[in-house]
Order: sequence, then C-alpha cells, then structure tokens
Amino acid sequence: MMKNMRIPSLARPLGAMTAALLLAAGAAHAAEPISPIVAVKVTNAAKVDLGKKLFFDPRLSRSGFISCNSCHNLSMGGSDNITSSIGDRWQKGPINSPTVLNSSLNLAQFWDGRAKDLKEQAGGPIANPGEMAFTHDLAVDLLRSIPQYVTEFKAVFGHDKLSIDEVTAAIAAFEETLVTPNARFDKWLQGDKTAINAQELRGYELFKSSGCIACHNGPNVGGASFQKMGLIEPYKTTNTAEGRFAVTKQDIDRFYFKVPTLRNVELTYPYFHDGAADTLAQAVDTMGRLQLGRKFSEAEIADVVAFLQTLTGDQPRVVLPILPPSSDKTKRPQPFD
Amino acid sequence: MMKNMRIPSLARPLGAMTAALLLAAGAAHAAEPISPIVAVKVTNAAKVDLGKKLFFDPRLSRSGFISCNSCHNLSMGGSDNITSSIGDRWQKGPINSPTVLNSSLNLAQFWDGRAKDLKEQAGGPIANPGEMAFTHDLAVDLLRSIPQYVTEFKAVFGHDKLSIDEVTAAIAAFEETLVTPNARFDKWLQGDKTAINAQELRGYELFKSSGCIACHNGPNVGGASFQKMGLIEPYKTTNTAEGRFAVTKQDIDRFYFKVPTLRNVELTYPYFHDGAADTLAQAVDTMGRLQLGRKFSEAEIADVVAFLQTLTGDQPRVVLPILPPSSDKTKRPQPFD
Repeated sequence: MMKNMRIPSLARPLGAMTAALLLAAGAAHAAEPISPIVAVKVTNAAKVDLGKKLFFDPRLSRSGFISCNSCHNLSMGGSDNITSSIGDRWQKGPINSPTVLNSSLNLAQFWDGRAKDLKEQAGGPIANPGEMAFTHDLAVDLLRSIPQYVTEFKAVFGHDKLSIDEVTAAIAAFEETLVTPNARFDKWLQGDKTAINAQELRGYELFKSSGCIACHNGPNVGGASFQKMGLIEPYKTTNTAEGRFAVTKQDIDRFYFKVPTLRNVELTYPYFHDGAADTLAQAVDTMGRLQLGRKFSEAEIADVVAFLQTLTGDQPRVVLPILPPSSDKTKRPQPFD
Repeated sequence: MMKNMRIPSLARPLGAMTAALLLAAGAAHAAEPISPIVAVKVTNAAKVDLGKKLFFDPRLSRSGFISCNSCHNLSMGGSDNITSSIGDRWQKGPINSPTVLNSSLNLAQFWDGRAKDLKEQAGGPIANPGEMAFTHDLAVDLLRSIPQYVTEFKAVFGHDKLSIDEVTAAIAAFEETLVTPNARFDKWLQGDKTAINAQELRGYELFKSSGCIACHNGPNVGGASFQKMGLIEPYKTTNTAEGRFAVTKQDIDRFYFKVPTLRNVELTYPYFHDGAADTLAQAVDTMGRLQLGRKFSEAEIADVVAFLQTLTGDQPRVVLPILPPSSDKTKRPQPFD
C-alpha cells in the first residue's frame, strides 16, 4: 500500500506550515485512485432553501403523497432501502432508487445516464407515470397557486417566470449540497493513519488489487463511467432494465449501467440496479464473480465490506422545511381517483 | 371584548416585577376561553431523539415505505393534507389524518378517542392493516435486529427489554415535544395588543359570540370534548365513520367525534373527519350552519378565517434524523408481495 502513498515524503524535513499546506492540497492522497469528498460551500442559500422545500413537497406528485424524499430519503442514505421504489398507486418501480447523496459527482443521472445533470434528472420522476405521476404543467400550476412559493421563486430567480426550469434548478441546487465529507476513509486519505484499522486497510488493498477500483474510483468511488453488469458471467435477473441501451439504442450498450457510487454504501442497501443483493457481503461476492471472475473467500469479503463501511461520511444535516400552505385556489390532490 | 380581558387590571399601580409575574402566570388572559400554548422543556433528550427516529422510520411498516411522518408530516402542519390517508398498498384510509401537533393536549387520541394517550395511539397505525400494516411483534423483531437501536433503547430505558411498550413510549415522548407556541393569537392573549389586527379581533369576537368557542376552547382550541357532527342539521357524507359509537357502542354516541384542535388550522386542510372541506371558508360556513344553526355572511366568514389564521404557532424545528442502518439480519421489506 505504501508505494501508492505520498505520506512518507512528508517525513522529510519540512516546515510545519508547508506540511499542512501539502495536506490541505491533497498531496497526501494524490496517488490514491479515490479522492476525498469536499464539503460544499453554499453560495445561494435562498435557492438551496427553496430547493429543499420542493424536494420535500409531496404536492409535486399527482397524489400529494410522494416527494423526492420518499425515494431519496435523507434519513436513509438518500435512498429508500427497498428493492425497487413504490410509485403512484403503489406501482412497482422498474429499478432500485439510486442515492441522491454525492450525486452531483456522477457523470450523468439515472442508472442509464439518460439525464445529463441533476437539473435534468429532477424533472423526470415528477412526470413519470410510474413514479410521481404528475405533469410539469400541473406541478407549475400548483406552485403558482401558493403565494409563498411565488414570492420565494421571485426572490431567488429575480423574475416572475415560474416554470419547470426554475423548479428543477432549485431542486438541483439543494441536491448539490448533499455531499458527505469526513468519511473515515477520507480522513485516512488525508493523512490520519489511525482513521481506519488493519482489516479495513486490507479490504482497501484487496479492493484495489482485485480490480474493483477499475470502476469504483474517483471522489464518488463510482459514478464516473458506464460498465456492463455481468462482464465475465451474465447477470441473472428478472428485472427488464437494459441500461445504457435505452438511451443509445446501440446493442453494444445493453446492460451497461452507470457504476453506482460506493459512498455511504452501508446505508443504501439493497444493491444493484435490481436491488437483488440485500447485504454488502452478497454484493461483494456477486461483483467478484461476475465482474472480475474471482471467487472471494469469506475472509476477503469481510475485509472488503469492512473497507466499504469506512466510506460513510457525515450525513447532511437537514432541518425539515415547513412547506408553504396551499391557498384556496390550489387544486387538491385526488390520490384515489 | 375588553370585558373579558384582565389587561386593564394591570393598569393599576403595580411593581414592574409583579406585573411581569402576573403576565408570566397567564393573568393577562385568565378570562379568555383560549389559553396560550406553553413551550415544552425537553427533560429526556435521548428518549425524544429515539422517538424521533422511530417517528421517521418507515421500517415500522410492512412495506418499509410508510412512517408516522407520512401521514403526520411535520413539514405540513403534522398532517398529510389529503382527504383521507394513503395506507399500505395505497389503501384509502377511513378518515382524515388529525395533526400530531399539540396532540398531547387532547383529552384522548384518534377522532373517536379510542386511545387514551399518545403512547396508546402510537401502536395503532403500526398494526392497522389499512395503514402501516405491520404487527407489533414484527416491528419489535425488526428493531432488535438493528444494533444501534438496541443500544439506544438500552441507554434510554436502562434495560434490555425492547417491546412495543418502549417503542410507543419513545414515540410519544417525541410527539409531546411537538407543540407550537408563539402564535400571534397567543401573543395577543399575553398582552401584545398589536399582535392581531382589527379584522382578526372581530373574527375572534364572532367566534366567541356565535358559539364556536363552546367546543373550540382551551389551549388547543378544541381537543377537549366529543361533540356531535351535525348538531342542528345532519352532516351529509359518504364516510362511514361513526365516531365515539365505535368505542362505546351506545347509540347516543353515534357521530360524536373528538373536537379537532384549531391550532395551525391553516396548515391542516382539508377539514372534518372526512376531509370534505377544502378551505377554511367552507369549514366555517358548514360549522355555522350545522352546529350553530347560523348562516354566516361572507364578511363574517372572512373575519373568522382571519382569526383562525392567527392560531399558527412556531412549527417544531426538526432536524431530520439519520436512521440506524439495517443489519444483515434485518428482514427486508417486501412491499409488493
């Protein structure tokens, strides 16, 4: 492991100041294929606050019951911990809900990457008949009927236009704040050698040497590429999602999915696009066999799982928003119609 | 109005200290039939914190999707703003979800008062097949499989017993903190004559003189008695709830419901046990005709509505809890089975 670390170089005589600067600049982990999550500095608090309200507002769904937070629950690692999500009228979703945490670091959004960024993503579930089952027009009409929202949108965007563009921009601004710095592993990357223990370090070494790192790398330990699910052995599932193929319509992209982040992975069970793996141990075993052609031993799996659990960072501290009340003009939801 | 106020007595020469004490003791509003909400002092923070986690934990439902907060949403006045709640498998609930805010001040819980207190109430929805559709045994098994919960229950209760008793006691402890002091009307009660305007004061006077106050009184502006829905004129509804009769089985109790609190009523639409009134104006009109035999004019309704809107207090500031993750032993929810 040490060959990949810059820490030894810091042992050379350096002024304390220089060493601190190098650490701050990330020099201590420059050679590692995973980099720490950087805390977010909120520059537009009003926009983030508006986005938070919208993220928690179930009135953006046909039923008045399902909000972004229903399936990207910030109490539960930004996911819903269900195999596939529950949509309008209890419809079974087609895919496992990916975590919203650190999602701004992904190369694209959704498992198949069909949205280029969080703003584009945010409009999807609102209008998806199997999810929130509303329409962008109805969502905007609803928000326009609520005086406090109208005031807030105007304050944030500086004009009276309240369209789905402003709605999704605000939601994305909130979601961009949902990063999880200070994971134990990041502290280790930053030079605190006591932040992870011997087993966790063994797990990380195996994670690298066995090839997991080829796809799960970068600040999000994933999220940076599309890869084939079932590379060495085919993945068996009843789930009908075909991954990237749905976007490109090219056969070569069939079963290529966005590599999920492993940040906070101990909180985001069950795993894989079909949610078929209940535990991290199962997920590591399956990945080893199907993607790497390697049967990990129980001890090896335990080591990798121990490493993965060091990737849990500080969860966003979210004060529950108080939603602006509907006005007499606001159309009431009819969830049972 | 002034005849009901003790404020004038404070005009007599009194030491500032004495006056302050009298105000603090509520003397300024002693003659009013509504009294201010008193802020809650948390004495057992660990218990409240555990209760908050449980309140937000959807794993207490069969599906893993519905938590206490789903229908008593603390972003929405402690209610769900839906005619009747959505239960397991999208079942239509039998009744409008009452607000959890200030619910500790009610004489009993549920519309028919079938639970004597919040602790007893909390166990109801978990095991109701139309709501969370779990069982107490399954809920307890689930919590016992989660190490962090086991540790927290032990720390709070001082023993290893983790039964539905501890679960509901913790939830109730959290719910007892959900009070909403500092409503503008309470400030007026406490002597700040500028806290409400002339129309709001007119509305309050009419609220008293027309008889609304007979049922909607006390700190919770309701919640203190069971009364017949449709006293002067019968209430027409397709809702089959029979109120207090369900508990006592005495014909005399048919259509007697717990008088709902009017605290934060502008946030808890729609109104009545069947959620049939979308707006406060409709609710005031219907109440006037059916309960008081009085047809309020539009101006009168506007005045009463203006008064009712002064009853919105400080909403509880809730930092979203981070739920302890399931362990490998935790049974996974099967929402679609």
